[in-house]
Amino acid sequence: MIAFGGDYYPEQWPRDTWLEDVRLMAEAGVTMVTVGVFSWGLLEPAPDTFEFGWLDEVLDLLAQHEIAVDLATGTASPPAWLTYQHPEILPVDRDGRRLWAGSRQAWCPSSPVYRERAALLVRQLATRYAGHPALAMWHAGNEYGCHNAHCYCDTSAADFRRWLRATYDSIDAVNEAWSTRFWSQHLTDFEQALPPRLTPTFNNPSQVLDFKRFSSDALLSCFIAERDLLHALAPGVPVTTNFLVMLGFDKLDYWKWAREVDIVSNDHYIDAADPDAHIELAKSADLTRGLAGNKPWILMEHSTGAVNWQPRNRAKRPGEMLRNSVQHVARGADGVLFFQWRASRGGAEKFHSAMLPHGGTNSRIWRSTIELGRHVARLASVAGSTPRSQVAIMFDFESSWLLANEALPSTDVKHSRIVQDVYAGLWHGGVTVDFVPPGADLTGYALAILPCQHALSPAEVAPLQEYVESGGVALVTYFSGIVDRSDQVVLGGYPALLRSLLGLVVEEFDPLLEGAGVELDDGSTADTWSERILTEGADVVRRFSSGPLAGEPAITRNRVGSGEAWYVGTHLAGEGWRHLAAAMCTASGLHWAPVEGVERVTRYQGRDAFTFVINHHDSPRPIGAAGHDLLTGAAVDMDDVIAAGAVAVVHSAFARAQGDD
Amino acid sequence: MIAFGGDYYPEQWPRDTWLEDVRLMAEAGVTMVTVGVFSWGLLEPAPDTFEFGWLDEVLDLLAQHEIAVDLATGTASPPAWLTYQHPEILPVDRDGRRLWAGSRQAWCPSSPVYRERAALLVRQLATRYAGHPALAMWHAGNEYGCHNAHCYCDTSAADFRRWLRATYDSIDAVNEAWSTRFWSQHLTDFEQALPPRLTPTFNNPSQVLDFKRFSSDALLSCFIAERDLLHALAPGVPVTTNFLVMLGFDKLDYWKWAREVDIVSNDHYIDAADPDAHIELAKSADLTRGLAGNKPWILMEHSTGAVNWQPRNRAKRPGEMLRNSVQHVARGADGVLFFQWRASRGGAEKFHSAMLPHGGTNSRIWRSTIELGRHVARLASVAGSTPRSQVAIMFDFESSWLLANEALPSTDVKHSRIVQDVYAGLWHGGVTVDFVPPGADLTGYALAILPCQHALSPAEVAPLQEYVESGGVALVTYFSGIVDRSDQVVLGGYPALLRSLLGLVVEEFDPLLEGAGVELDDGSTADTWSERILTEGADVVRRFSSGPLAGEPAITRNRVGSGEAWYVGTHLAGEGWRHLAAAMCTASGLHWAPVEGVERVTRYQGRDAFTFVINHHDSPRPIGAAGHDLLTGAAVDMDDVIAAGAVAVVHSAFARAQGDD
Amino acid sequence: MIAFGGDYYPEQWPRDTWLEDVRLMAEAGVTMVTVGVFSWGLLEPAPDTFEFGWLDEVLDLLAQHEIAVDLATGTASPPAWLTYQHPEILPVDRDGRRLWAGSRQAWCPSSPVYRERAALLVRQLATRYAGHPALAMWHAGNEYGCHNAHCYCDTSAADFRRWLRATYDSIDAVNEAWSTRFWSQHLTDFEQALPPRLTPTFNNPSQVLDFKRFSSDALLSCFIAERDLLHALAPGVPVTTNFLVMLGFDKLDYWKWAREVDIVSNDHYIDAADPDAHIELAKSADLTRGLAGNKPWILMEHSTGAVNWQPRNRAKRPGEMLRNSVQHVARGADGVLFFQWRASRGGAEKFHSAMLPHGGTNSRIWRSTIELGRHVARLASVAGSTPRSQVAIMFDFESSWLLANEALPSTDVKHSRIVQDVYAGLWHGGVTVDFVPPGADLTGYALAILPCQHALSPAEVAPLQEYVESGGVALVTYFSGIVDRSDQVVLGGYPALLRSLLGLVVEEFDPLLEGAGVELDDGSTADTWSERILTEGADVVRRFSSGPLAGEPAITRNRVGSGEAWYVGTHLAGEGWRHLAAAMCTASGLHWAPVEGVERVTRYQGRDAFTFVINHHDSPRPIGAAGHDLLTGAAVDMDDVIAAGAVAVVHSAFARAQGDD
Repeated sequence: MIAFGGDYYPEQWPRDTWLEDVRLMAEAGVTMVTVGVFSWGLLEPAPDTFEFGWLDEVLDLLAQHEIAVDLATGTASPPAWLTYQHPEILPVDRDGRRLWAGSRQAWCPSSPVYRERAALLVRQLATRYAGHPALAMWHAGNEYGCHNAHCYCDTSAADFRRWLRATYDSIDAVNEAWSTRFWSQHLTDFEQALPPRLTPTFNNPSQVLDFKRFSSDALLSCFIAERDLLHALAPGVPVTTNFLVMLGFDKLDYWKWAREVDIVSNDHYIDAADPDAHIELAKSADLTRGLAGNKPWILMEHSTGAVNWQPRNRAKRPGEMLRNSVQHVARGADGVLFFQWRASRGGAEKFHSAMLPHGGTNSRIWRSTIELGRHVARLASVAGSTPRSQVAIMFDFESSWLLANEALPSTDVKHSRIVQDVYAGLWHGGVTVDFVPPGADLTGYALAILPCQHALSPAEVAPLQEYVESGGVALVTYFSGIVDRSDQVVLGGYPALLRSLLGLVVEEFDPLLEGAGVELDDGSTADTWSERILTEGADVVRRFSSGPLAGEPAITRNRVGSGEAWYVGTHLAGEGWRHLAAAMCTASGLHWAPVEGVERVTRYQGRDAFTFVINHHDSPRPIGAAGHDLLTGAAVDMDDVIAAGAVAVVHSAFARAQGDD
Repeated sequence: MIAFGGDYYPEQWPRDTWLEDVRLMAEAGVTMVTVGVFSWGLLEPAPDTFEFGWLDEVLDLLAQHEIAVDLATGTASPPAWLTYQHPEILPVDRDGRRLWAGSRQAWCPSSPVYRERAALLVRQLATRYAGHPALAMWHAGNEYGCHNAHCYCDTSAADFRRWLRATYDSIDAVNEAWSTRFWSQHLTDFEQALPPRLTPTFNNPSQVLDFKRFSSDALLSCFIAERDLLHALAPGVPVTTNFLVMLGFDKLDYWKWAREVDIVSNDHYIDAADPDAHIELAKSADLTRGLAGNKPWILMEHSTGAVNWQPRNRAKRPGEMLRNSVQHVARGADGVLFFQWRASRGGAEKFHSAMLPHGGTNSRIWRSTIELGRHVARLASVAGSTPRSQVAIMFDFESSWLLANEALPSTDVKHSRIVQDVYAGLWHGGVTVDFVPPGADLTGYALAILPCQHALSPAEVAPLQEYVESGGVALVTYFSGIVDRSDQVVLGGYPALLRSLLGLVVEEFDPLLEGAGVELDDGSTADTWSERILTEGADVVRRFSSGPLAGEPAITRNRVGSGEAWYVGTHLAGEGWRHLAAAMCTASGLHWAPVEGVERVTRYQGRDAFTFVINHHDSPRPIGAAGHDLLTGAAVDMDDVIAAGAVAVVHSAFARAQGDD
Repeated sequence: MIAFGGDYYPEQWPRDTWLEDVRLMAEAGVTMVTVGVFSWGLLEPAPDTFEFGWLDEVLDLLAQHEIAVDLATGTASPPAWLTYQHPEILPVDRDGRRLWAGSRQAWCPSSPVYRERAALLVRQLATRYAGHPALAMWHAGNEYGCHNAHCYCDTSAADFRRWLRATYDSIDAVNEAWSTRFWSQHLTDFEQALPPRLTPTFNNPSQVLDFKRFSSDALLSCFIAERDLLHALAPGVPVTTNFLVMLGFDKLDYWKWAREVDIVSNDHYIDAADPDAHIELAKSADLTRGLAGNKPWILMEHSTGAVNWQPRNRAKRPGEMLRNSVQHVARGADGVLFFQWRASRGGAEKFHSAMLPHGGTNSRIWRSTIELGRHVARLASVAGSTPRSQVAIMFDFESSWLLANEALPSTDVKHSRIVQDVYAGLWHGGVTVDFVPPGADLTGYALAILPCQHALSPAEVAPLQEYVESGGVALVTYFSGIVDRSDQVVLGGYPALLRSLLGLVVEEFDPLLEGAGVELDDGSTADTWSERILTEGADVVRRFSSGPLAGEPAITRNRVGSGEAWYVGTHLAGEGWRHLAAAMCTASGLHWAPVEGVERVTRYQGRDAFTFVINHHDSPRPIGAAGHDLLTGAAVDMDDVIAAGAVAVVHSAFARAQGDD
């Protein structure tokens, strides 16, 4: 079944509220809650003094009501006594400013004291609750790195040096990797290596890259330490931690993290100001499924309504929460959970919406919660399946990090933006996407896209080359394949490693000024980027028709083996990516089925197909699927329409999956 | 009489200039100067070495010329030797950055060393000048908290903990007040409590609130220490300190401060870029009168022309200084003083205008100063009186602090803006306003307004309830009464404490996106905020007519007892507040007398009425008062006009005050 | 001859690349390279351990290929071991933040440790390479102060106090200069003096001024220490260091620096977003020539294409690099060098263009490099000459510093902007400009301009007065002559020192609000500034025709002796400065020869004249010179046209220089 529920903080409420909570959870169809995320301070009120009584009581109550518990280890925020006794735990930012207690995550990921105290708590929890009937899953930490991903303190510096020693054979290998012959940065001993702290001008970009790798690994080792304890002390209980796969968060290399969790879970919040937030949601859900290796995953947190941390937190529109939730399920989520069950009275998130709002049960949000609970229950049969796709987007956290560096050709080239724009182009054609890591085997895909895949190693290029030669169609965008995995330019003409595959060389980058645009010869426009392309075998698909590069190639196609390698040397504007996506799909023999504003995703389960249809449009649209709707039980015909803003999950038992073998 | 003069810094000038100064003061009609505000460094050039000779001379000279002195204690800026010897006095900001000497107010309000040295100086001054014939008033410190209101150093942290111990019975009471069960912030000892220093993410908002209370109190205790010394050593001389009641300054809770000063005084500067600066001035003057308990107060500083600290400091237009000054007097000021008498040659304020500019007496500004001096002298008969009003606006510094916090529904909800907009609506109808503190007795008012009165306690609601039941009309705006005095949401449906009074419940907030607007069913528009209101007895006055809440209530009215409680669930735009104010005045039986751009305020003195008429418009307008003009001596008829930009003060001995008993 | 080449970093490349380098340098006509700028870390890999082998080899190779070397002392960036062993070397910013190693220039200019270690390296280099055949010039440091101009650490503070003791007779003299009687800033001992660190509000502006002087001097003394060592150990070899004369950099007082270098050199980069970047380039080149005392100078760095440190780094357009280079030569450069020879693979500047790009020789940029090398070689005969001008602009680094202070009448008054706008007005009329220091003898000029010459001493005014009386024409703009050299207002009516010369007094400044404009009576417009001018003998040339000063003077002219002193009390917009420049030239009897978009500058060599014609326009324009073109060898007639974007250098042996005697 699909889990339904949310974060539950009974410690914020008196005992008699707990009884009301479980009663209302039953009413709403809640099947799982996450407990204990921020309970360290109450579970261990003084060093080595533990108070588990209240948690025993809560877990027993939940077990009695058959509500499964995702039990948090509580290590996300250390208690006040710990940072009071050990201020050296507190993280330090790039400017050298200490970050104090009084919010959350005020701990340095490399702190031995933090790690030791966290392990002690986890050990206690695991021992105590290993066999508890409510326990369904462990929730290690919480949103690792949300606020403390990069610590520049002396402890972190020492740990970074340990990481460098483990990563590089010698200090000369670091010198090579960091290009320290530039700007007199030569190191003669590991002890001289530093985090990229505030400097007079641009930091060494390779040092920044390694520091981001180290930082992701430092937090990952915190997770692994907890996971290993949990596995040892409570065997058989899966361990997860909630990722933050959404626009604007790219601090951790989740490809590495995904290998370490027993089940992938994700927190997702929409940007209230983004009219296309549902497309960003779809992309994040697909990326999360990619991290999960195309297996189901859990939506650990989203919101019933407004959040509290954006500048202006609008309410969700009627039906929006349902659409959001169903979108996640369509793309592989086997759990729909929220932050949080009951809105807090005080603290920094008191104006964050919840399943049960401040106003109580006589409210629109509560009614929506109940309605959603019913819908989720009706989707039990889809559990365990995922959609399949013939389109892969290569997604690289390191390229995202690199494009956030200073001193690049243009500050407007943002990895998240190009990925989102390319993805949205496909979304409008009804194309579901698999996200794959750099260097992934692309066998079986009909179309593979590398959006601003800035760094590449030869080993990562090989499967791509092989894929195209074997008949695959690839699309590479500008500023891809420029540097190696040390952030050093691969010489031999940009993009050197892809030059023969693409049949071209880029002679010179020519970023566009702020607000400037350029035209292509089909009348479309582009912005942000242009470049001087010399073809070396590729056909020219589109040329620039204005600006200093008028007449020069903008989009090219190179036939290689039985496949094609396309290239885009600019950032398409307007519907440019959509049109290019349509052309690519045609070239790849893929179905291009645009229905304006309607999302249609199919999860496959043996011979069963479950087509999720979500109408984001403000008028009725063709439903485009036949069978019966799991949510209403009604028969559905291809010719039927789906109401504005509505959702349907059409089961067609006879369907043969696209790409099925 | 009405005092006239300004800050006087003879120490910046050679002795022979002093003689010119007193001669020119006499020419301008100066009756009072403030001396010694920044003289600590010269009065005590080395520890315990005092040099009072020059000050003796200055005071004697002023006494000879019958110019009263508001003698400053000089403690606003410690001398260089003190911060050199005791750098621990220097304040530290939220980021942990030390703020050094070299400007002003470089001291931590909690510093025992600062307090001890300040007390020593005050003792010396009080002893020496207690009986001096020039001494009319003491001026403790200067603009307390202008730059050092919030210090985060370890000394302040310790003092904050002392304040917490004095405020709360136990650390558990702090835990309750601060909702520390959220985010694992539980404290087990007062020693663990910290100022809200830089943290990884949002600070605990209740902790921020208490820190702002503490900070206001810490500075207030500095003032009280000086005042008590002055009272003891120079009995009978009133002690003041200059408040900063103006848009954008809300660091101190002046309701508490006002109780401690012998006479309220205020510094006010207009925003050169604000075309409605005169309305902001009116509001600040009314608020200052409110702080003074509807007794006269002193305008301690304003400017003859441009200031130097805004981005672009335009000159005042001809007549503008006179209008500004007369506005303040109209609303209760019994003193019109300036920063400063003579423009400084050097230092950070050398381009701040003065009564006597760099160019000397052959200047427009000097001629305006002389003209103003004559006008002020003619207003002697109004001294001691104040205007009376039947409209009260509840003004709450704590609500202003709370709305400046992070993680709220919308960053666009700013307390100062809503107060200003509501006030301006009334101003345009010729309505003078009394400002009252939260929980004030509203007996006698016909209309009471709570603009974004975010925090309320039950005790503060009671007088409001009683007021409406007894026939009063109240207007409450959105986001009022949401939290209690610990910044915790009052449960039971927003705004729980006002729900029965208003006859409605707010189901969900729905802030508008940046730049977005919404329409009401009378064709007017609103911005910033909307919310889903369910009426529970209230009549709907206006509904939203666009957006997701189209058709839902926007403005309501609830009849309670013999009164009415109105509510506005959005931020009116354009002339919205003006129209609502007109409607409210009609409902309250108040006179609504809009004359575009003309301000008309009456001060009452027994059976005498003095109607101040200030024409801010660029064409002549009806004067709307009868009697004779104190400034010209001319008889004035109701039908007369007042020239564009002109002022008149019409004395009508026969007038019967509105609301007189 | 005109030197041609660039920065060369062989240490970034393997040995076999060096051979390719010298071969390609020969192909491109490279005659000079700068070597060793960032080599400290490799030359001295451990304290007192030197490795000169690789540098010997590089210099020998260059000598063999007859490429002259500008040998850097390598002290711009200390090695990692030095800042590791001595973190006290690291600079500290105004906020108290330490700036760490990992970029460049991470050293405090006052650090004795840095200075000692730098001297040791310079001594080694000078001893070793004094007689090397490749050595043509020493390059001390690099871009002094680019990132570390202002250090606020305790070492700098102590050095600042030493500077104050050396500059002022007594602490009371400091008190007078700093106006410390304002805001209680009185100092009783030099030990109390501080750098202008972060303060609660505005720093003392005179203290800021002295700190900027000190900071420039501290770096200058670093340069002088190196220069003296080089002179002593390698007599006869000129010593230079590359200035940063370009828009936005004004940290050093280059008038003082220029006196200390053997030859002036400059680094210049255009702002990719500025459509008038070529005018800014012309201004910077003229200013550099002024610093060089109207002798030739060297363009030490510019770029072949995009840089990497601006937000969006567009490529140069075809012909743009050539135009840029020829512009510099026209205005006195006897060297055209680039950063850098070969584009770096890694590090923070890997996307900075170079003479030889990442893609190698089959590239547009490389072909442009070769073309430029040929052009430069053809200009050998102009070497040693400079243009002459009859127009002087007084340029004052200290006024630039003062106008960057806080608490001024308007933040929009920026020295660099007014200088640029005034200069551009003249540029459009084909007028070359000499820049002169404050107080310069103006004899021989026909027109002298003081753009926002905010500070003036009486001694600096005297030559100006004499110049006008003797028939010169002067133009002074608003906010000039307001303060003395301690940043104290000169009393007696603004601008007191210039009042009689200009025949007016400024009664009151009236800066315009953001985005606001004002009209003059000829229909032109102005922005930023207005002021109330009372004429005292001057004629009114233009009046304001809108706004509060409508009818008042805006531009005036005062006849003094046989000359004229003009004054502008506002900031002209649109083509205002161009029209005023035309009027001034007419008044001065100067040739006003506008050809839209064409730059025409003549360098004189005895009886030879070399007229550089650069067509910045997008269509052919009249060439306006006769003779033969050095670049093509072709004969040139006055009636000929020069193609869009093209350049020509017309030699006319018979020409008689304008202003020749």
